Order: sequence, then structure tokens, then C-alpha cells
Amino acid sequence: MPVGTVASVKGLSPHDLRRLDVDIVLANTYHLRLRPGPELVRDFGGLHSFMGWDGAILTDSGGYQIFSHAERVDVREDGATFKSHLDGEVIRLTPEEAIRIQDALDPDIAMVLDHPVALPATRPEVADAADRSLRWARRSLDHHRETVVSGQALFAIVQGATDIDLRRRQIDELTALDFDGYAIGGLATGETKEQLASTTAVTVPLLPEDRPRYLMGIGYPDDLLRGIAAGADMFDCVVPTRHARTGQAFTSRGVVRLKHAKGRTTHGPLDDDCPCETCTDFEVGYLTHLYKCREMLGPTLVARHNVAFYQRLVHDAGDAIAAGRFDAFADQFLARYGGGEVSGPPARAE
Amino acid sequence: MPVGTVASVKGLSPHDLRRLDVDIVLANTYHLRLRPGPELVRDFGGLHSFMGWDGAILTDSGGYQIFSHAERVDVREDGATFKSHLDGEVIRLTPEEAIRIQDALDPDIAMVLDHPVALPATRPEVADAADRSLRWARRSLDHHRETVVSGQALFAIVQGATDIDLRRRQIDELTALDFDGYAIGGLATGETKEQLASTTAVTVPLLPEDRPRYLMGIGYPDDLLRGIAAGADMFDCVVPTRHARTGQAFTSRGVVRLKHAKGRTTHGPLDDDCPCETCTDFEVGYLTHLYKCREMLGPTLVARHNVAFYQRLVHDAGDAIAAGRFDAFADQFLARYGGGEVSGPPARAE
Repeated sequence: MPVGTVASVKGLSPHDLRRLDVDIVLANTYHLRLRPGPELVRDFGGLHSFMGWDGAILTDSGGYQIFSHAERVDVREDGATFKSHLDGEVIRLTPEEAIRIQDALDPDIAMVLDHPVALPATRPEVADAADRSLRWARRSLDHHRETVVSGQALFAIVQGATDIDLRRRQIDELTALDFDGYAIGGLATGETKEQLASTTAVTVPLLPEDRPRYLMGIGYPDDLLRGIAAGADMFDCVVPTRHARTGQAFTSRGVVRLKHAKGRTTHGPLDDDCPCETCTDFEVGYLTHLYKCREMLGPTLVARHNVAFYQRLVHDAGDAIAAGRFDAFADQFLARYGGGEVSGPPARAE
Repeated sequence: MPVGTVASVKGLSPHDLRRLDVDIVLANTYHLRLRPGPELVRDFGGLHSFMGWDGAILTDSGGYQIFSHAERVDVREDGATFKSHLDGEVIRLTPEEAIRIQDALDPDIAMVLDHPVALPATRPEVADAADRSLRWARRSLDHHRETVVSGQALFAIVQGATDIDLRRRQIDELTALDFDGYAIGGLATGETKEQLASTTAVTVPLLPEDRPRYLMGIGYPDDLLRGIAAGADMFDCVVPTRHARTGQAFTSRGVVRLKHAKGRTTHGPLDDDCPCETCTDFEVGYLTHLYKCREMLGPTLVARHNVAFYQRLVHDAGDAIAAGRFDAFADQFLARYGGGEVSGPPARAE
């Protein structure tokens, strides 16, 4: 899922997204609560109508954003109180309020309010937040069943950081409830690449096979392949569009940096193997020129390419699974890709 | 012609431009001389190949930009010496060098190097620059005939500011030479709206009817209609894309400002009469939200709309001319449009 934090995938219109075969995007409850506000979105007919997007939409609940963006966060059993990072407004968000906001936004899939913790954190901190997330998930499900009549799906979020036993207990409790899908949350919060890989490998297979399994906030191409290997069906990450803005293009041979002067004289497309419009119509020298001149067309063209790259990666992975040759596909991809991207942690909203 | 100063129409890809029925764009010799340099563009196969645009391209000669952007401009009979506004590089541009650069850039239409003067200016200053422009035009034509073998067209530029007699003499001299097209230059340089209108009305009809007549750097919708009424065939202006970046959308009922908070709750498209994608898919409330959140999608969507608006204006004007009802069309347009745009002067490069 490309990330459209405030109901806009940065630099890509719905027309662009459709041409890239995107069928679902993510938006953020926290950001949309602040601007333009759920009542306004409802007044415009919900997110699909507001942002002109007839594909599917998933909204994150705001939990991750509260704990990463907001100030003076005060968590009580009832909910979280925090100050908006934009104007200092004091906002109270409870599990029920997150459901109410997402009912107004009207995405296809809503997420329960959760309480992630940034690492490093103590075991009691992690356990306390995970247990609270579980209680909030129950309240979210009850409130969703009582109040939402639109047929919107609701997904649970498993917390527990890198504590596998804790996550296992969370999964046992959450899967006893009848959520429409299950997500592994609380990653991309400060763990190492190895911790991300091992947590993914152990926890995703514990989620129900007959429901969508969603690895939240992940990630770089190699992270996605490890997630798919573990059984994950859904991902979101800002890197395809954010990296486009910083001049980093994903290619089958690794990341190409378009702010390097050496690209100025480079002929040929970003990626010989990529059939996207950016690779068909433009050479590296021109893209480098656009970044040098700070032309907004640079991030636009590279966002189109990066999203096309990610779409192709997951579609090719799906084809490989169907053909029973996923492991060979993943090995081949990673051998060319060169071991992955280490220029920064994944991130969950932009 | 939408303006693509450095070989990029800000926010619009060639694919976007084709969908907007754009058939020609303008690029700037001055800016491309600085970055990425004409030799690099030639090495990439010329501007069409470099920027991935198979429509037509006209390059301005750099005259206007030297006198509006560069520093320490020293004009001698041979040419102009100036410091780059980017890095202080001292550059010498002669009429012959402007032809050589444009031969390397390889647009369909090149312009002669001219010497415009910004108003206010004295009569001797205006006459001196116009006479020099005339001598430079002769040298440009000679050098173009001797050295350019690509079939590239070369247009002359008439200077003379608001001095009608001076412009008339320039036109007599220039039309005695066999240029492929003729442009009225030196407007959008500080004259009043009325001076622009009267200069256009008197000078454009003096240009040869059997060659393209190009009113340079113009302008707002009402300026275009006055230019068309006088017989002009070609225009360029940055306002469709620049206004998009500042949240100003051109509509049949005047300019809509998308940074005004009142647009937040406004339903319906920017322009009920506009068939463009932005008007079909998005409401004013959403566009206002994009500007409020500084999402790059706002300028992108409004650039698409503004260019669509300008394209429709000139196409409708052409249809009205063919049907023998141009005056009625222009009156009707201006009555709805509300008297034109007064928020800023036209501009020639961005």
C-alpha cells in the first residue's frame, strides 16, 4: 500500500496510481483527525469521494502516530491524551473515538487503536503497552460491531516489540476474537534489521491463514520478501514516495542516488528491467538534471518508478508463490539487489 | 506554450502534457546553457530526447533572461557578458553563440538573441536596444543559415518597448528579411496592462500574415484574447504552472484562490465548465486541503487544470475564429471571467 497520510499519496494522483496498478492505499486517522477533520471528510462523502480514489483504502488507527508525532502523550486505561504536532491542540483519543473517526472517514479497512512503544524500552513497558493494546482491541471490536453499519472491515494489531513470547500470547488472545484481519504492529520503531527479520519470521506464521496478514510499516524490498516468506499478505511503507523526494530510486540492482553528480552523464534508464513510464521515457542523466534544478517533476517521476518497482516486486512474488518457486525468486532478487537498503529506518507516516 | 524553463514543465510530465492536448512547449537557452549545458543535451540526442517529449519545442534565445536574471550584464555590440545567477560564472553570449547553443539543444524553433529593456527606460535606451536587437537578428539569421542544417526554424523578435513608431520601423526592417516567424518581444517587462494592450493591438497586425506571429511572455487569459484579436498565433507564459504553485486556479469565472480557508468546505469542482481530470475527480474542498497540508499533489493537480484551461481557451478561440464569431466569443468569455487577473505581472521564465 502506498502511503497517503493526509489523503494524498505524495506526488501521485489517483489517475497515476491506477496506471501503476495500485489497488489499495493507506491513510492516517491521526493526521486526518487534525486536518481536515473527520466531519469534513464525511461531509464530502468519505475518503474515497474526498480524495477521488475508487480503489480500496485502509486507515491506520492513529496509535503509531500519536506515539511518534504528538507531544505530551498521556496514556490512561481509557485512552490517550496528546498535543497536536501542528497547533498544540489537546486531543483525546480512545479506542471508541478511533472507531468513530474511521467510521466518518469510511475506508474499506479500519485498524484498532493500539499502543506501540519505541525501542529501546524495558520489558515491563513493552508488556504494559501490549496488554493495553489487547484491551483496547476488544473495546474497538465491541464498539465497531455496535456502531459501524457500512460493512467496513476491522483489523487487530499485535504488539509486543521483539518479545516473542509476549507476542505469541497477544496473538492467542486476539485470534480468539473474530477480527477481519490481523496485523503485526510495533515494528519499524527502532529495532535492528535482524530483530525485524526474526520477529517477522516467528510471528507472522502464527496469524490465522484464512484472514489477511498485514505487516505494518514495512519496508525495504528485502524486508518485504522476508515478510512474504513468513506469510504476510499486506504491507505499507512511505519509502517508495519519500525516497523519491530525496532522489533515491529502487532498482533491481539496488538503490540509485539521483543527487550524485556522476549521474549527470549517465545514459539509459534507471532500471533496464523496469517497464514503467519513467524508465521507458527518461534517462538517468535527465532525472539527475531535474534533481539538480530542484524541479518537482523529479520526485514525481521517481515516485512513479518507485511505486511501480514495489508493485512489480509483490506481483512477481505472488506469481512465484503460485508457481511454487518463491524461494528461488527471492534468492535471485536479493542476489541482484545487493543485500538491501540500509540508508535509514522504515517509517510509517509522511 | 506551457513553459519548461530547464526542460521540465513544472509538475507536468510529457505524458501529462499529451493528455492535456499540448503540442508545443517552450524551454530557455539561458537556463539550459547554465544547467545542464548544451553539449550534454546534445549528447542525449537534443531536447526532445533529453526531456522525453515528442511534441514541438521552441527555445527562447536567452536575451530576456540575461536582462532579467543575470548579474553585471555588460552589453557591447558583439554580445552580452554577464554573471550566472546560479554560481557567478562569467558567460559571454553573442548572437552567433545563441544560435550555436540552440543548434545543440535542437528545438523545432529557435529565437534570435535580442536586447530587451525593462521599463521604465528612456527613449534613447529603448531605441539603442531595439536597433542593436535588429543588428543581432541579422547576424543570427546569417549564422543560422551558414551553420544549422537540421531544418530548425528561426524566428525574429521585434523590440521597441511601448514606442510604436520605433516598433514599426523595426518590423519594416525585420520583415524585409526572410525569418520563419516573427515575435513581439520586450513585453511583460514593466509596462501597464493598458500599454500592453495598445502595443499588442498596433504591432501584431503589422507582422506578416503568412508567418507565425508570436506574442512573447503573454499572459493572462484576457491578454491572450486581446493578442488573438490582434492576430497573434503563439503565446507562452509561466502563469498556468506558477499560479498553480501559489494556489491560484484559472476558471471561467475568474481566479479561484485555493489558499483561502473558505474553500475548505466548498463542494463542487474548480470550474463547472471544465472537463479536465482535476475538475472531474476533485472538489474545491479537497484541493484546499492539499494546499493547507502543503502536499505536492495540489500544485500538480492545479497545474493540470490551469494548462487545460489555457488550452481550451485558445482552442475555443480558434473555433470561434473559424466560425466567424470571435468577437462575440471574447466578449462572452470576458464578461464571465470578470475583467482579468491583476494579481501580478506576467513572467517569462521560471
